[in-house]
Amino acid sequence: MWGGSVRVLLAVGLGMALEALACWLRRRRRRRRGERPWVREVLFFPSRPTCVEGLLSGSGSGSAAAPCCACALPHRESPLSRLLGRLLSARRSLELCVFAFSSPLLRRAVVLLHRRGVRVRVVTDADYMALNGSQIGILRLEGIQVRHDQEAGYMHHKFAIIDKKMLITGSLNWTTQAIQNNRENILVVEDKDCVNIYLEEFEKIWEDYNPANYTFFTN
Amino acid sequence: MWGGSVRVLLAVGLGMALEALACWLRRRRRRRRGERPWVREVLFFPSRPTCVEGLLSGSGSGSAAAPCCACALPHRESPLSRLLGRLLSARRSLELCVFAFSSPLLRRAVVLLHRRGVRVRVVTDADYMALNGSQIGILRLEGIQVRHDQEAGYMHHKFAIIDKKMLITGSLNWTTQAIQNNRENILVVEDKDCVNIYLEEFEKIWEDYNPANYTFFTN
Repeated sequence: MWGGSVRVLLAVGLGMALEALACWLRRRRRRRRGERPWVREVLFFPSRPTCVEGLLSGSGSGSAAAPCCACALPHRESPLSRLLGRLLSARRSLELCVFAFSSPLLRRAVVLLHRRGVRVRVVTDADYMALNGSQIGILRLEGIQVRHDQEAGYMHHKFAIIDKKMLITGSLNWTTQAIQNNRENILVVEDKDCVNIYLEEFEKIWEDYNPANYTFFTN
Repeated sequence: MWGGSVRVLLAVGLGMALEALACWLRRRRRRRRGERPWVREVLFFPSRPTCVEGLLSGSGSGSAAAPCCACALPHRESPLSRLLGRLLSARRSLELCVFAFSSPLLRRAVVLLHRRGVRVRVVTDADYMALNGSQIGILRLEGIQVRHDQEAGYMHHKFAIIDKKMLITGSLNWTTQAIQNNRENILVVEDKDCVNIYLEEFEKIWEDYNPANYTFFTN
């Protein structure tokens, strides 16, 4: 009787140990593949100019590795091509909240997504939007929804949310100067809780900047 | 004989199920407590002015909740007090890499850490450092090590690493304007892999900005 119980208890313990080992092995495999559950990637800039036409031609190849043209730029991956690849992975929605947007390459990516039927919403800063080189006017001409602040402070965020599943956030403004010359960082995060926190903030700002709330329309 | 084997197999299965259940319950408990393994906290700004003297008086209470003085400012938590609390938790080291540093409150926190014996290293941007209101000169007078860029682009990072264990990163420059008026975000991350990636970048920049490498010292 007691021998049987001990055997059962030992077996239960063995089962628990096996499951704990399996759990640890799964975590280790993810880690070895470079998959951290909370963060997909960290990108540092400046990014040396590389050819990104393969990504922006709309062929949907999503790779900068295979040379797509005979231009003089290096045909290899770069922090910018990695960022573009993440953006162009959007299939349903892009929420973009960025202080300065003057990079023609990033504008082409956003327009490409819009033309593919991705729902694009952009929030930006009114002061920077008025400067030469801003791409916001082109986005609006394409029919993309853009809202801007009407506040004394800056709308200084620099984050994007892809398909409500992936967050891209950091110090990088979407300008050629920032991409090619500045020391910058970007975190690519895939965590439901974190993405939802930023999504909630985006929706709040989107409503705050609703033109219907502009205070200079005095009745 | 067969009955015994089946019983052992069932017991192993029961053990595995128990361990899987325990694992799920631990995850759920962490989630309910708001503890995400990868990110400690997300802070959004602007932060309405609150009294942070309790944190900065050096009493080490680490809490803004208990009123510390009779000033007119609200005595409650705010995004700024949360940020200060994180910074002041440093016991051994602070690596700070920030474009614009003109907030007297954040400067007081950094000086406090230095006086407590925490090893503080600051990297900043040369252009912003030269502007009125920059706190970099005061840090240097206190004996804190500061290095700055000597590049055409900006040193535009805004991250801090606490005790080589916690990363604070986002869009927020360390200025009163950014804290009180701008829309900004900060992620507080406690993940060894991620912190190490940023630490490695800090060490690289620290060496790049070593005054011994300045090119205007022509021999």
